[in-house]
Amino acid sequence: MEKKDLLYQGKAKKLYQTTEEDVILAEYMDQATALNGQKKDAILGKGAMNNQITSLIFDKLAQSGVPSHFIRKISKTEQLIKKVDIIPLEVVVRNVAAGSFSKRLGIKEGTPLSFPIVEFYFKDDALNDPFINDQQVLVLAIATQAEIEQIKALALKVNEVLKAWFLSLDIQLIDFKIEVGRTKDGSILLADEISPDTCRLWDVHTHAHLDKDIYRRDLGDLVPVYKEVLRRIENNQ
Amino acid sequence: MEKKDLLYQGKAKKLYQTTEEDVILAEYMDQATALNGQKKDAILGKGAMNNQITSLIFDKLAQSGVPSHFIRKISKTEQLIKKVDIIPLEVVVRNVAAGSFSKRLGIKEGTPLSFPIVEFYFKDDALNDPFINDQQVLVLAIATQAEIEQIKALALKVNEVLKAWFLSLDIQLIDFKIEVGRTKDGSILLADEISPDTCRLWDVHTHAHLDKDIYRRDLGDLVPVYKEVLRRIENNQ
Repeated sequence: MEKKDLLYQGKAKKLYQTTEEDVILAEYMDQATALNGQKKDAILGKGAMNNQITSLIFDKLAQSGVPSHFIRKISKTEQLIKKVDIIPLEVVVRNVAAGSFSKRLGIKEGTPLSFPIVEFYFKDDALNDPFINDQQVLVLAIATQAEIEQIKALALKVNEVLKAWFLSLDIQLIDFKIEVGRTKDGSILLADEISPDTCRLWDVHTHAHLDKDIYRRDLGDLVPVYKEVLRRIENNQ
Repeated sequence: MEKKDLLYQGKAKKLYQTTEEDVILAEYMDQATALNGQKKDAILGKGAMNNQITSLIFDKLAQSGVPSHFIRKISKTEQLIKKVDIIPLEVVVRNVAAGSFSKRLGIKEGTPLSFPIVEFYFKDDALNDPFINDQQVLVLAIATQAEIEQIKALALKVNEVLKAWFLSLDIQLIDFKIEVGRTKDGSILLADEISPDTCRLWDVHTHAHLDKDIYRRDLGDLVPVYKEVLRRIENNQ
């Protein structure tokens, strides 16, 4: 299998076609962005860490019966994934109030929610990824009602598996964002990545941020924090 | 029945307790506000027009089987209503893209939606009435799942009745906002008002705004426009 044309360059990854029609090569870049790309920095080693973390997480999820686009890691910064049509939604699951949820609804950051909730954001940089409800997903023809139900169930299953696993690593899963894609046969797969870029992770004891809020909120150096998450995951797969 | 203590002063109405425990007197004020109260003006005659328009609309809805808090109009600017616990939601129904919906989702104002959609906004002036989804309604304990379903059904029924009636008056119902309340026995009633303050109404032929956008967008004098809506409604009940 060979790397062919660049198909897409995102904020943290490049996607290449391979010689196999249905296989994409994802290359994780040494780049951090925040605030919808307004803040942007090169961070040496970040690509390799997120490639490794995502690979381990997608393996863990596969063992728990959560289907994803992940095939296998092939180098420090590259992994092979199945080709899917990405559904233009950022699917957010929240266990604890934080970030925009806290600000918009006036709930103090760190307040546990009585049950995990799912939110949809319409992936559109020009519109600044607006928060949308189920009926807007339908009227915008982003997904069908049946797909919405599948996506929510998938998101909550990911939450259930990761929340328990991270807790065993002394990490509280506050919230996270996933993306999903449609395969040719119409089934829904977990896609994109799951890493400290896409999750809020707090140390259970110190409540220290173990995620991109370090970068987003200028709290210090991101590299040792991501390394710490990787260390805990590698020691307890 | 007598007017007693002032219970609540909103942006366009005052609510008074009456000598009957379960009956409230609503007084419609000669005041217009927009942008969550940032814009505010006294407009002579507006209170009387909205009291009359809301009374006629709630009568029409009652004839079509939609339960509301409305009892009867008792003076030019006053009506009696049943006491309910207002659920802190602004419930919006949209038939055509306009206003914030158009801006947030990048859909040209005037684009018909393929079906009517319902949106919830958390009524909280300090938070600027944020848009919320069903799961947020649940986790904030604003309403139960069964109530959410009832509220949506009520909102869509109001839409069905008013859309058809307004069309017979050469008015296109673009979108509208309602509020709902819980009675002591736990049933859900339509509450607040329905008037050109709370609807977007376009003349079918000219597409002229027949609603508060006249005021919100500084398009001219609000009084003749509201009078025109009242005239069409009174001529065709």
